[in-house]
Amino acid sequence: MMTPAHTDYEFPYMEVATFMRAPLSREFSDAEIGLIGIPYDGGVTNRAGARHGPREIRNMSSFMRRANQTSGIAPLDLCRVYDLGDAPTNPFSVEKTVELISGFYRKLHDAGVIPISAGGDHSVSFPVMKGIGFDRPLGMVHFDAHCDTCDDFMDEKFHHGAPFRRAVESGVLDPKRCVQIGIRGSLPTTDFWQFSYDTGMRVITMDEFYEMGVDAVIQEARRVVGDGPTYITFDVDGIDPTFTPGTGTPEIGGFSTYEAQRMVRGLRGLNLVGGDVVEVAPPADPTGNTALVGATIMFEILCVTADAVASRRNDRQAAE
Amino acid sequence: MMTPAHTDYEFPYMEVATFMRAPLSREFSDAEIGLIGIPYDGGVTNRAGARHGPREIRNMSSFMRRANQTSGIAPLDLCRVYDLGDAPTNPFSVEKTVELISGFYRKLHDAGVIPISAGGDHSVSFPVMKGIGFDRPLGMVHFDAHCDTCDDFMDEKFHHGAPFRRAVESGVLDPKRCVQIGIRGSLPTTDFWQFSYDTGMRVITMDEFYEMGVDAVIQEARRVVGDGPTYITFDVDGIDPTFTPGTGTPEIGGFSTYEAQRMVRGLRGLNLVGGDVVEVAPPADPTGNTALVGATIMFEILCVTADAVASRRNDRQAAE
Amino acid sequence: MMTPAHTDYEFPYMEVATFMRAPLSREFSDAEIGLIGIPYDGGVTNRAGARHGPREIRNMSSFMRRANQTSGIAPLDLCRVYDLGDAPTNPFSVEKTVELISGFYRKLHDAGVIPISAGGDHSVSFPVMKGIGFDRPLGMVHFDAHCDTCDDFMDEKFHHGAPFRRAVESGVLDPKRCVQIGIRGSLPTTDFWQFSYDTGMRVITMDEFYEMGVDAVIQEARRVVGDGPTYITFDVDGIDPTFTPGTGTPEIGGFSTYEAQRMVRGLRGLNLVGGDVVEVAPPADPTGNTALVGATIMFEILCVTADAVASRRNDRQAAE
Amino acid sequence: MMTPAHTDYEFPYMEVATFMRAPLSREFSDAEIGLIGIPYDGGVTNRAGARHGPREIRNMSSFMRRANQTSGIAPLDLCRVYDLGDAPTNPFSVEKTVELISGFYRKLHDAGVIPISAGGDHSVSFPVMKGIGFDRPLGMVHFDAHCDTCDDFMDEKFHHGAPFRRAVESGVLDPKRCVQIGIRGSLPTTDFWQFSYDTGMRVITMDEFYEMGVDAVIQEARRVVGDGPTYITFDVDGIDPTFTPGTGTPEIGGFSTYEAQRMVRGLRGLNLVGGDVVEVAPPADPTGNTALVGATIMFEILCVTADAVASRRNDRQAAE
Amino acid sequence: MMTPAHTDYEFPYMEVATFMRAPLSREFSDAEIGLIGIPYDGGVTNRAGARHGPREIRNMSSFMRRANQTSGIAPLDLCRVYDLGDAPTNPFSVEKTVELISGFYRKLHDAGVIPISAGGDHSVSFPVMKGIGFDRPLGMVHFDAHCDTCDDFMDEKFHHGAPFRRAVESGVLDPKRCVQIGIRGSLPTTDFWQFSYDTGMRVITMDEFYEMGVDAVIQEARRVVGDGPTYITFDVDGIDPTFTPGTGTPEIGGFSTYEAQRMVRGLRGLNLVGGDVVEVAPPADPTGNTALVGATIMFEILCVTADAVASRRNDRQAAE
Amino acid sequence: MMTPAHTDYEFPYMEVATFMRAPLSREFSDAEIGLIGIPYDGGVTNRAGARHGPREIRNMSSFMRRANQTSGIAPLDLCRVYDLGDAPTNPFSVEKTVELISGFYRKLHDAGVIPISAGGDHSVSFPVMKGIGFDRPLGMVHFDAHCDTCDDFMDEKFHHGAPFRRAVESGVLDPKRCVQIGIRGSLPTTDFWQFSYDTGMRVITMDEFYEMGVDAVIQEARRVVGDGPTYITFDVDGIDPTFTPGTGTPEIGGFSTYEAQRMVRGLRGLNLVGGDVVEVAPPADPTGNTALVGATIMFEILCVTADAVASRRNDRQAAE
Repeated sequence: MMTPAHTDYEFPYMEVATFMRAPLSREFSDAEIGLIGIPYDGGVTNRAGARHGPREIRNMSSFMRRANQTSGIAPLDLCRVYDLGDAPTNPFSVEKTVELISGFYRKLHDAGVIPISAGGDHSVSFPVMKGIGFDRPLGMVHFDAHCDTCDDFMDEKFHHGAPFRRAVESGVLDPKRCVQIGIRGSLPTTDFWQFSYDTGMRVITMDEFYEMGVDAVIQEARRVVGDGPTYITFDVDGIDPTFTPGTGTPEIGGFSTYEAQRMVRGLRGLNLVGGDVVEVAPPADPTGNTALVGATIMFEILCVTADAVASRRNDRQAAE
Repeated sequence: MMTPAHTDYEFPYMEVATFMRAPLSREFSDAEIGLIGIPYDGGVTNRAGARHGPREIRNMSSFMRRANQTSGIAPLDLCRVYDLGDAPTNPFSVEKTVELISGFYRKLHDAGVIPISAGGDHSVSFPVMKGIGFDRPLGMVHFDAHCDTCDDFMDEKFHHGAPFRRAVESGVLDPKRCVQIGIRGSLPTTDFWQFSYDTGMRVITMDEFYEMGVDAVIQEARRVVGDGPTYITFDVDGIDPTFTPGTGTPEIGGFSTYEAQRMVRGLRGLNLVGGDVVEVAPPADPTGNTALVGATIMFEILCVTADAVASRRNDRQAAE
Repeated sequence: MMTPAHTDYEFPYMEVATFMRAPLSREFSDAEIGLIGIPYDGGVTNRAGARHGPREIRNMSSFMRRANQTSGIAPLDLCRVYDLGDAPTNPFSVEKTVELISGFYRKLHDAGVIPISAGGDHSVSFPVMKGIGFDRPLGMVHFDAHCDTCDDFMDEKFHHGAPFRRAVESGVLDPKRCVQIGIRGSLPTTDFWQFSYDTGMRVITMDEFYEMGVDAVIQEARRVVGDGPTYITFDVDGIDPTFTPGTGTPEIGGFSTYEAQRMVRGLRGLNLVGGDVVEVAPPADPTGNTALVGATIMFEILCVTADAVASRRNDRQAAE
Repeated sequence: MMTPAHTDYEFPYMEVATFMRAPLSREFSDAEIGLIGIPYDGGVTNRAGARHGPREIRNMSSFMRRANQTSGIAPLDLCRVYDLGDAPTNPFSVEKTVELISGFYRKLHDAGVIPISAGGDHSVSFPVMKGIGFDRPLGMVHFDAHCDTCDDFMDEKFHHGAPFRRAVESGVLDPKRCVQIGIRGSLPTTDFWQFSYDTGMRVITMDEFYEMGVDAVIQEARRVVGDGPTYITFDVDGIDPTFTPGTGTPEIGGFSTYEAQRMVRGLRGLNLVGGDVVEVAPPADPTGNTALVGATIMFEILCVTADAVASRRNDRQAAE
Repeated sequence: MMTPAHTDYEFPYMEVATFMRAPLSREFSDAEIGLIGIPYDGGVTNRAGARHGPREIRNMSSFMRRANQTSGIAPLDLCRVYDLGDAPTNPFSVEKTVELISGFYRKLHDAGVIPISAGGDHSVSFPVMKGIGFDRPLGMVHFDAHCDTCDDFMDEKFHHGAPFRRAVESGVLDPKRCVQIGIRGSLPTTDFWQFSYDTGMRVITMDEFYEMGVDAVIQEARRVVGDGPTYITFDVDGIDPTFTPGTGTPEIGGFSTYEAQRMVRGLRGLNLVGGDVVEVAPPADPTGNTALVGATIMFEILCVTADAVASRRNDRQAAE
Repeated sequence: MMTPAHTDYEFPYMEVATFMRAPLSREFSDAEIGLIGIPYDGGVTNRAGARHGPREIRNMSSFMRRANQTSGIAPLDLCRVYDLGDAPTNPFSVEKTVELISGFYRKLHDAGVIPISAGGDHSVSFPVMKGIGFDRPLGMVHFDAHCDTCDDFMDEKFHHGAPFRRAVESGVLDPKRCVQIGIRGSLPTTDFWQFSYDTGMRVITMDEFYEMGVDAVIQEARRVVGDGPTYITFDVDGIDPTFTPGTGTPEIGGFSTYEAQRMVRGLRGLNLVGGDVVEVAPPADPTGNTALVGATIMFEILCVTADAVASRRNDRQAAE
């Protein structure tokens, strides 16, 4: 384990970049929460670039300081959090990558580590879920412009438009406990996301989002997932592309970064068991803003997750 | 006519770029709706670059899929839509360009083609209107930071700040059936847009926009234009420049892309006879987001226009 | 004094760039309002670049025309406004720069010039206040993501996170008449901005901002500062970084440019004695949008300040 | 077949972009030379982005005018040249893409069309050679920083570092008639390109390049390939990355664009049967210069190839 | 006259930007050399943007210090040099702009001011020559990728591809005393620059340039222009576009900046009467390098011209 | 010590970025060569940004593979090389930073570690030399556009234009054993670098560089430094700014990256005791090319230094 030189006066441009300035480690044994990169974009149907996401999110995450000003949560003080490096991937094969990632996350799961990951394109969420949800299906709060529940493209099952269909089919995701927020954009056919509707996922389009308002969306999300184990997956293309131009499949008309932060914070208290931020593709954003948004959302997910982890630990200790 | 290789699995980066992946044609005879580029920016008073708008909008429009998720309209299925190439222009002369464009659109009009154009700076809207509105004055829904109804600059009549004054003076635009939405920014003199007010156009500033709310703005626009033939002209500088930095005369404090989409969709059912998206100047936006916004707004205009065209066709067929 | 060739037909890309196309002068005697650059960024704790702010704000300010469309104020017609060049600075020493700037502004103050400045990082606001507030403490309307009232970093007192603590300690700023709007972001410790709370500054976080709404925030700001002499300081990182990516310490989740304009306009009628726009760092924004936002906000501050200056002049003349 | 509106006064920003403004066609029957895009980058081991190469090369190729000033060759006047659109590809599978591309080029070959292609990463050159070289092995003039003759990575045979090993193994490339120019950069092991040396390819490193001089390099290349059928493959990373930053595997210390042009022109008179320009990855180059270089090199290859095609046609006609 | 605050310690980012930090003046009477911007790009046939050249060249020229290290010439010490602001232009009309510019330069000429200008596109060189060469034809050293001696495009005489044809026809330029260096690129027809050859201009293509070597090119240029009054016109597209991507008509394969500097310095001692640097189009170059090159070349031209001006002054004084 | 997951198939975008993928360590005891970042740019007189150099050089250095193709040197196989993190710095004070850096390097020196550093601006080279040269003066091979031997600016001794004057004055640098290569650019006064000439440094301007040729320059450098302990300092502004636009004080007319590589390789066999690459300022280069150049030059310096270290080790072992 290598502690980065994190001193009181260390400024964001200094030293090797790890996620949130967490110590870098290859050992799973001590970690409660693992921050992991998944540098893979072989599942995209348009612009690649998300393979560079983990490095740039690490870089920008140095802007994150210890405590969340809104909630008061200081995740690295609350839990044992490490940067566990990158998951193994194979840029030439979606199938092999699914195996590599799911195997890696299975080991994390077996070691009792809660993973928070930085993609990579959205195809990586399925193998993550496979690794950590095999023993009981997960609920999901899903921020995205797209439902990502369509079927094969060109005979390929595991592309970035289908992970949650695959996850439901594999039994690792419970569609009744899924909410999808921010859905919009043109479609190849009007029934393109029919799988979501047919399986009972709760789909909240941008039109419905603005009709309901942020607070009602939060309540609806909490209602859907209930108190079962829940995964947060945040595709940055859920946010409007003016905030996040560096992404593979931008769709105008999304929610704002403030609304995103509000919603993630609103998930505090749920039974959170992991999360990811995906589709940050730095080459498409010369300002670096997309990676900053990705890093900040990852920090927000870390805060609510650390709170859940600490809470479960306290419960366990109280029970002993 | 050349059909682009538009197959089910074609991804946005593949093949020659035509508007919305519509077939490319030089023949007007079969078209109900023509998508046309007008690569001209000789009318600008600041940054040029809109001459590159048509190519980049074509490029980004490959992101558009067949169907509008909100309305269900699939314009290329509903009507015969072609990319008819670029209108003729002359970069050295505003006067000659006005003649070239208006002549071209007159031919389209005579062939019964409804044009939806991608500029180019806003000076191109006057010759378009001249070509298609000579036989009866048009109503107009105009999204913009500027009224574009000022008088000559340096003895030049046809610059990009005056098209709608010229259109009213030429009798092709009915000011009583005009609404201008998004007006803001500093002015050379406080009465700079007096022509709009004097002729009875309905001017909705950003302050009034936020007081009214989007739904009321839509209703007001529909009330103003009524059921006469109506043209939609969308200057991307109506949108806030954080969404559309690639434009010649940016003014901060504009509406969002979601609000833009809502408003265009709200024009469904009007008697639409053409439209344009102008002032996309790609060199000023290294992220490419402006052209994506331009392409998406053009798609939204295409959707409501295709609905109107199909509806009129159905009415005609019913009448026969 | 050098009048720029400001003719009716001059377009934004023409001629040497001065702030708002005001005449350039080295003489203080005739000026009522001085527009001044402070090209200094030696106080930053992360990305430098704000030293280039004054040049780019001058450049983009050529987009500003004579009159404010919302308020009707035409500041260069209302007051004698000059571009007075840049304040002296020393890039190698924060201490020497504090002395150089405060000395320069003391001379402006003695000459009766009201200064509106373009930074530079936020460390420059303390020496400005020292120069113009030594004879009576100022009130402050402060737009920012950060309170900037923390203590020394690495034994350095004058960095860009502490100017308002230094100003209160020096007696040039009255904390009871201070309002800080837009506060957000992660913190090194949860009590990082305790000085603001302890001294009675009114801190409005983004959460509170959206709960209150813009109009209530304006009213609260007016209540806090009252009718005493008041300074406006606008850090562009108060605005969301999608609008202003070119800044040293971006924090997602800020207010919009429209909200910023509304708030500055809402300060009309206060007893305004100066203002600044800081932390525009052009190298971090290849679109140039940040400098455009900075220039427009500077123009809005100029409008309400010119109104105050003219009003006080009228009062004085009426009293004679 | 769709002729683009190529008139005397057409400027580079006008109309739909086809390669070199050649007419766009889906028919192979009439073509002597086909210009083809191969939008595929699934074979890369670092930065993706070359999938966007064909569109941007098409875009920039509008700068190319009819005649080569140095040689006087006007390729579109000399031969029947068409833009034949894009070859089919599958972003999810290298194997399937190899089959799709080689099948497509086999059809071109059977129709007697000489292909000049725009990649795409360098993995595409193997299936092209497979399509057009199956009946007799090709010679090759290869410009590149890398020999691209290494073996499998991660059990993948067809990545962008191995195409010419695969081509030799498949019998479509004669290593004795291969010359590789511009080789440089660090290596995983010192014998990384041993296959080139072992099979008798002529490897010219940058050090040798500058020792020999351009004219001697040209002579050596002509000597090596002799008068057999010869393919030109030009990886833009052969050129120094200051000229071509938009590429996946940049290596500093390459040759200049002038030297590149000189070398391609020096291949006039060879028995040329096809060529390609690969590894133009536009997202990594915000200036667009890389695509301009790619388009110009493609034009130079087209000129010498058109000369060869016309010459063979004349020989055939003379023989009849 | 306004002296910029040019002190010993002033760094490049400080203060209002004038050309070479020369004092800004509107008076011609005292100037020996005038530095002038010509913000016009209405003559281009492709990418606009050169209208922004003067501002960015002014900005980057702050990097220039007092003395030329190679020649020892310190032009602002040697002559009275002022930034005289921008020449008048009209973006809507090439014809009017020709009149405005030539009138302005005629006044400079009558006042005895030697002009060194920053364009603007190359169309501006003809009216400059008309203003200063009407009384005796000029010789010319012309650096460019293009001869710029073609005829009308679309009935327009004054576009940026024809200035030197117009100048010869007007009798202000002596073709026998013209040398054109750096010529290259594809052509619409092989005889496109026939006017240059027919009138006896000395055309040095890039191929000839590298055959001759820089020193021989300098000697040839000196031989051609002799000791008559000579104008230097430097189109930055003469340099390879990797150094100057920000230009309207880039052609790969040009000379380097070092070669450019060597050649301009080699003109010392000629009877120089003016010069310009044109076609710097900043929007196409996000690095700013093109404007730096433009500013440095303008400085080099200033150095050799100041030497000539001082020398003629000394000769006059000696003669008195 | 943390070994990065450096496996055979690891591609450049994967995992946490350390210099050259060397293991990250905080312990000096085992290292023969330490790779160190110095993220400081408080000494610059123009554009800041070099504080971000170490992170981006680390990032780009993942492109470096194990072995140098030209020399066959594989530095990480030859010596024990670690990434030792960043040296301590204080952004607010040049004086304190000089103390922090020199103290850190003294400790490295005492531990027997040979340092190769990535700046930071050039002011950092003086404290490095102070730390490692206090016991015997160093020779120096210095690549730069500037001699960096001027005196105080604004009473500041330690800015980035003076490090080698300070080093000579401190007795840690022997001017007779110094060579400065690439000198050019305008100067405040013609004798600005007089200190270099007066103390006997060998100054090779760009003019002399091209007269001599690269091989003669190498021989001259070897002659000057002889066989005493020698330090290599490489300011990337020595290279032409088209290759390295991301730097604080660009001067056109420099040498190429190939020439740079040749020269560094030509120093093999000297008694090398350390080196640095400075003035990489990533914010000024959106292509990332400058950091790639910096990383590659750092790799070249590492190769010749590792060869020297191994050679001295062998000599010592042979002597035992």
